[in-house]
Amino acid sequence: HSLRPFSSAGFAGKNDGGLAALLCVLLALLLRDRCNLARPWGQGADPFGSATLLRPWNEGDSHMERAKKRLSAAFEFFTKLGVKYYTFHDRDMAPEGHTLEESHRNLDEVTDLALQFQNQTGVKVLWITCNLFAHPRYMNGAATNPDFHVFAYAGAQVKKGLEIAKKLNAENFVFWGGREGFMSSLNTDVRTELKHMASFFRMAVAYKEKIGLKCQFLIEPKPKEPCKHQYDYDAMSVIGFLKHFGLDKDFKLNIEPNHTTLAGHSYEHDIIIASEFGMLGSVDSNSGSPDLGWDTDQFPMDIHNTTLVMKTVIDQGGLQPGGLNFDAKVRRESTDLEDLFIAHISAMDTFARGLRNAAKIVEEGHLQNMLRERYLSFSHGTGQKVEDGSASLEDLEEFIKQNGEPKVTSGKQEKYEAMFNHYL
Amino acid sequence: HSLRPFSSAGFAGKNDGGLAALLCVLLALLLRDRCNLARPWGQGADPFGSATLLRPWNEGDSHMERAKKRLSAAFEFFTKLGVKYYTFHDRDMAPEGHTLEESHRNLDEVTDLALQFQNQTGVKVLWITCNLFAHPRYMNGAATNPDFHVFAYAGAQVKKGLEIAKKLNAENFVFWGGREGFMSSLNTDVRTELKHMASFFRMAVAYKEKIGLKCQFLIEPKPKEPCKHQYDYDAMSVIGFLKHFGLDKDFKLNIEPNHTTLAGHSYEHDIIIASEFGMLGSVDSNSGSPDLGWDTDQFPMDIHNTTLVMKTVIDQGGLQPGGLNFDAKVRRESTDLEDLFIAHISAMDTFARGLRNAAKIVEEGHLQNMLRERYLSFSHGTGQKVEDGSASLEDLEEFIKQNGEPKVTSGKQEKYEAMFNHYL
Amino acid sequence: HSLRPFSSAGFAGKNDGGLAALLCVLLALLLRDRCNLARPWGQGADPFGSATLLRPWNEGDSHMERAKKRLSAAFEFFTKLGVKYYTFHDRDMAPEGHTLEESHRNLDEVTDLALQFQNQTGVKVLWITCNLFAHPRYMNGAATNPDFHVFAYAGAQVKKGLEIAKKLNAENFVFWGGREGFMSSLNTDVRTELKHMASFFRMAVAYKEKIGLKCQFLIEPKPKEPCKHQYDYDAMSVIGFLKHFGLDKDFKLNIEPNHTTLAGHSYEHDIIIASEFGMLGSVDSNSGSPDLGWDTDQFPMDIHNTTLVMKTVIDQGGLQPGGLNFDAKVRRESTDLEDLFIAHISAMDTFARGLRNAAKIVEEGHLQNMLRERYLSFSHGTGQKVEDGSASLEDLEEFIKQNGEPKVTSGKQEKYEAMFNHYL
Amino acid sequence: HSLRPFSSAGFAGKNDGGLAALLCVLLALLLRDRCNLARPWGQGADPFGSATLLRPWNEGDSHMERAKKRLSAAFEFFTKLGVKYYTFHDRDMAPEGHTLEESHRNLDEVTDLALQFQNQTGVKVLWITCNLFAHPRYMNGAATNPDFHVFAYAGAQVKKGLEIAKKLNAENFVFWGGREGFMSSLNTDVRTELKHMASFFRMAVAYKEKIGLKCQFLIEPKPKEPCKHQYDYDAMSVIGFLKHFGLDKDFKLNIEPNHTTLAGHSYEHDIIIASEFGMLGSVDSNSGSPDLGWDTDQFPMDIHNTTLVMKTVIDQGGLQPGGLNFDAKVRRESTDLEDLFIAHISAMDTFARGLRNAAKIVEEGHLQNMLRERYLSFSHGTGQKVEDGSASLEDLEEFIKQNGEPKVTSGKQEKYEAMFNHYL
Repeated sequence: HSLRPFSSAGFAGKNDGGLAALLCVLLALLLRDRCNLARPWGQGADPFGSATLLRPWNEGDSHMERAKKRLSAAFEFFTKLGVKYYTFHDRDMAPEGHTLEESHRNLDEVTDLALQFQNQTGVKVLWITCNLFAHPRYMNGAATNPDFHVFAYAGAQVKKGLEIAKKLNAENFVFWGGREGFMSSLNTDVRTELKHMASFFRMAVAYKEKIGLKCQFLIEPKPKEPCKHQYDYDAMSVIGFLKHFGLDKDFKLNIEPNHTTLAGHSYEHDIIIASEFGMLGSVDSNSGSPDLGWDTDQFPMDIHNTTLVMKTVIDQGGLQPGGLNFDAKVRRESTDLEDLFIAHISAMDTFARGLRNAAKIVEEGHLQNMLRERYLSFSHGTGQKVEDGSASLEDLEEFIKQNGEPKVTSGKQEKYEAMFNHYL
Repeated sequence: HSLRPFSSAGFAGKNDGGLAALLCVLLALLLRDRCNLARPWGQGADPFGSATLLRPWNEGDSHMERAKKRLSAAFEFFTKLGVKYYTFHDRDMAPEGHTLEESHRNLDEVTDLALQFQNQTGVKVLWITCNLFAHPRYMNGAATNPDFHVFAYAGAQVKKGLEIAKKLNAENFVFWGGREGFMSSLNTDVRTELKHMASFFRMAVAYKEKIGLKCQFLIEPKPKEPCKHQYDYDAMSVIGFLKHFGLDKDFKLNIEPNHTTLAGHSYEHDIIIASEFGMLGSVDSNSGSPDLGWDTDQFPMDIHNTTLVMKTVIDQGGLQPGGLNFDAKVRRESTDLEDLFIAHISAMDTFARGLRNAAKIVEEGHLQNMLRERYLSFSHGTGQKVEDGSASLEDLEEFIKQNGEPKVTSGKQEKYEAMFNHYL
Repeated sequence: HSLRPFSSAGFAGKNDGGLAALLCVLLALLLRDRCNLARPWGQGADPFGSATLLRPWNEGDSHMERAKKRLSAAFEFFTKLGVKYYTFHDRDMAPEGHTLEESHRNLDEVTDLALQFQNQTGVKVLWITCNLFAHPRYMNGAATNPDFHVFAYAGAQVKKGLEIAKKLNAENFVFWGGREGFMSSLNTDVRTELKHMASFFRMAVAYKEKIGLKCQFLIEPKPKEPCKHQYDYDAMSVIGFLKHFGLDKDFKLNIEPNHTTLAGHSYEHDIIIASEFGMLGSVDSNSGSPDLGWDTDQFPMDIHNTTLVMKTVIDQGGLQPGGLNFDAKVRRESTDLEDLFIAHISAMDTFARGLRNAAKIVEEGHLQNMLRERYLSFSHGTGQKVEDGSASLEDLEEFIKQNGEPKVTSGKQEKYEAMFNHYL
Repeated sequence: HSLRPFSSAGFAGKNDGGLAALLCVLLALLLRDRCNLARPWGQGADPFGSATLLRPWNEGDSHMERAKKRLSAAFEFFTKLGVKYYTFHDRDMAPEGHTLEESHRNLDEVTDLALQFQNQTGVKVLWITCNLFAHPRYMNGAATNPDFHVFAYAGAQVKKGLEIAKKLNAENFVFWGGREGFMSSLNTDVRTELKHMASFFRMAVAYKEKIGLKCQFLIEPKPKEPCKHQYDYDAMSVIGFLKHFGLDKDFKLNIEPNHTTLAGHSYEHDIIIASEFGMLGSVDSNSGSPDLGWDTDQFPMDIHNTTLVMKTVIDQGGLQPGGLNFDAKVRRESTDLEDLFIAHISAMDTFARGLRNAAKIVEEGHLQNMLRERYLSFSHGTGQKVEDGSASLEDLEEFIKQNGEPKVTSGKQEKYEAMFNHYL
């Protein structure tokens, strides 16, 4: 069952081996092809049209047969691309059964096969996540569902997900709360729902410790869609939530920049904010379309943006045990099999160019030196007392009485931008 | 020096006395007429045009003379409207001088007069704030300025602001960080700036305690404008910041809903979020225009929105010592003096209708009962263990093994909306 | 085959008979329950989750059987609501077959039944439209598809749609170009595509005349979604297109205000613009969520907005042969059958309140009088010459030399708003 | 009167002479330094802060003296940058007087000096425009003002502007209707206002012909700001308006891409649309910030965007007599004189890189060939009949009966994007 169409893609040569090597531990791929209850856009459906991406690995008599064919195709794809890591949603790995027990058995069976593939190929699991949003039972939320029965179902599903993470040696475990939020404040008790969500996370932390699972827990913020408002709006919202409920030692963030732009920030914003708070754990490197108000999950093709992201990653000393994941999908109209290769390779190249640019910026140090100089006045005198935490408002007033009006200092934004452009 | 034009406005009759009485302790007004260096839109200027609102109280030979005329006019206005509280920016009260000392003296002199007016009329100060954004020295930030010299200036200004707050018995003190953020991530060290901002707040808390000032400290979130990105983006951003730096016991939030809508949330969102986290301190009740991407500071005229806000205020047992402030301005084209009255009275009426609607909703209890029933499953059995914090993932799995698939429960959004509409 | 669940809805009493009577000729309903290839959200699917709205009329062994059950249920629904008109997409009426011929036969068969229901109940067709966006063949456009073969298919489908319109005495025929536009300017020849779209419309006009179909042609603008950019962006875009290609006599507009808000305008904007250009033909009265960037197709529940819309409709003397259509869907979480009734009745009530408010505004005439006075200066002297088209720049300069600087006149927006609020 | 600070900028070397030469006839510059009543941001003021850009040429005893100093500085700047064209607003050239006559005299006097500078340096006028938005008299509109008196004033001002255009040999004349629109539909008679605007344009066309002025008339669309809604929303809105009133032969469009992005389109969208309709006359090449909702007028620094723009310019055979204008301003915080040079030179370089990229794309032809192939099916058979306008719906149906279902063809967006990226 080899997938011939892949071997004819012929784009591998475009990928710069040296750069791919640099990227290797950072890069992971999700072949988002859906099963029974997963998101319909996995096959090109959108709210206004049905599936267009009819893949050979989605043909077959039973859900389980298709799941295994997909997995085999996925590992062929990972190997051909030369990536070292992959990621998955539980329900994309194996189909939901009629009962929780059947779902568990399905997952056991398909992940046995996945483990075999992992061992054969050396491809490892960057992260696993549980799909707690696609099934109708989760329409009013999972951990924030008003009905305890649904909350319990979500808990049982995550319990199994953690066990699978241990079995497959996943290095991270992601929570994305697509239905944790509200459509209308009128029918929602926000305080109660947040308290439940915190309880849910505490139970997951407890069970992780109980079974000796070593992976990093990650929360992925998204402001809206499918909910009108999601509790994990952006990096700062999640940080605020975690700190309020005393969970900030147990979680980091998985930032997806097209979620960031939907929250009204610039592409790189939450990467930087999460990093500055010591909370950047991993990156889903999709891109959106700034003139559209929904999540397009496009492949990142903008060198300016990938340079900014990679610079932050270098500045914080890498993402381990996190990585750089493409949670992107080819356009609904990109129906050729080779489009899958073109999209992944082009996006890898775009990040490779970004990494090369960022490395040069960091090596040459010009931007960093200009930045350091801007803040020099805090390295001595009363400025240093501010850094130390020993200054008072009286000290500040005294300083002004001695020194009068500050002089105007240009922010030199255009110079920074021009210098940055020089590296693109 | 009575302001004749006011007495001919003739709109007082439109204001429902009974409702105004209900509102009395909640309501405050800012007569935003600017002096030397204050925001140009105080007189109707916008980025594409010059001042249109030529007020009699802005005529006069010197800045100080005009400041006093304005103050007198403002108290005449407060009295005619029958409001009990007012609010102000330090630099709107008295003009900036050539030195810090001169600015302090100006502020002393005009606030002496203000205190006299307060005693004569019984009108009190809801909050004071320091303008740390209009003067060119603050163009790169105040507490987050890369230059310590500017940071020190801001500290000296806040020190004086706190002293004035004590002198005038202000019940709250607001911080709005309009320039605390960045225009470009390239020239900004986010971590350092946030640390400085926290230090700044700590010094303000220390000085407040030192001088025995009793008022509540408030931070007012705004996502952007003037900065491209402001650190106090929305309620959750501020909550995250305060908790990270251990400042959450010392501050509450002053929510302005048109800032909330600029952050991509619905009008009532941050009012609710702040309230649910126990952090809602006060409300600047302006409205924006959902199809515009900047802060229009319009008077609130939407009964649907004011009902939602007042319902949250009732639910949390009032806003004391905070209140409901109109930080709004008449349109640049509303050049008649009577427009000031029309705008304030209409907005008061809109909130009065909102309060009356909300009171009826709360009294009749239908919406609240429906809401309570939605979450009933957490009041017994394993659901209650979740509330108690004693449940585990194993308990949840066991529950599902016993009880199987949850049944589908309608969220009934349209029913909630229809019932809500019934009260408008 | 009566649908018991409907009869227990028990909400009919909430609907104000008198107002419904006023609305009767304006109101039409689409029971958007989908067949084979129609939009998945008809049953509550969204991009992140599968169908939640499992209706009794969607059960059955074959597509055709289900189509007929749906139709029967729909007429029961129309009758219970007491509406006089309905609307439909061809592929929602009858399922797409394996060939064009089979699709035609399906449509013939189900519309025979529809005609029977129409005759029995007196419910008439407000408009028909062809679904040229859901099937994968249309993924790159229908009339603007780069492949002539697809263009031809769309033409053949519209030909049949026009014949069905004649058979069912539809009063209007709608074109919505959801895939007429582009995802990327890189792979698009805009000029060629627009020229093809104009040709397509010309052929439809020619065939309409040939078969003696009397109905009004309507184009429904939408700025984006599913396309990144749609050619029919908003009212003015369509007007520009129609006038450029000489088609403006043959078409009017069907305005959906939540499309208008997605285009960055206020809710009522395109209703007004279309009306002022004499191009307002019909209204799809959905509402969106101003803080979301996609089309939520919610039921209109905002009395302020419905008052503005109905005022424009009254001002232009009605919408005939157009009407007011609910192209809305219940929330994905509103899974009870009664939610369908609650949503439609509440929205009808909201428009009924809007109509009553608007009628009172028009009758009392205060707002209209203030408005008329604003423009009075154009009714005499040189002003009147401008109206006549006989003035020149020299006349204007001469007028200023005689009369000097104009005096400032307040726009009095808050007064207009307060007066408007008085009617809500 | 040399401006020393300029000569020390030292950035000229960064500008690539060869590319600048290519750009020469396209490039023009506006030194937007304001006089009395012009936009406050000319000196760095924004709605939340006062002027920061204190220029030596804005010092002086009288408005007229400062205007002349500014003009001299501007020509020194143009010469140092080596640009061939400049542009200006009438009220930025010479200050508004107390009467129309005084304003006219001021303009005569300063433009006499400008003509001298033009002759000395060879720098020419790309376009002139009249500022009909900054003065309070225009707060409710100029050509759409409800008061004829204001309408007349605007006409008198434009009459003079046209005479100045003739005197200075301006190659274009721009109309930007910043106040032509509305803040509230409640106080606006849209139809009347549009009719007046058309009359206004007709008078301008008549006077242009009368005085033998040869320049191209241009309208610059902007969706909003300062108005809530502006009539000239985007390219298609203006095209629709012009065609409706029979003015489309007399005007082309001046597209500013940051206005385009404010209208919800992508950066290049209106450049392409205007070009495809044969209406692209000139380009104001500013950039906005996609995460901000107002007009930031930043210098264009994105190579991806400038490549797209220049490709369209090449495709339509140049912009003559239009050009590429920087209607941008340095950031409010960029207070050094050298920042003016850095900003202009960097933006020129960004467009030069864009031009070079676009030229290579066009020369190599790969993208163009792929595009041509997409539409090949319209070059023969029934497809060609569509192009000819001789096809009918019956022909199309017949074609499908013969040929059945079309085959699926990938849109290959990612391939186009990857190829495009190859040129950056």
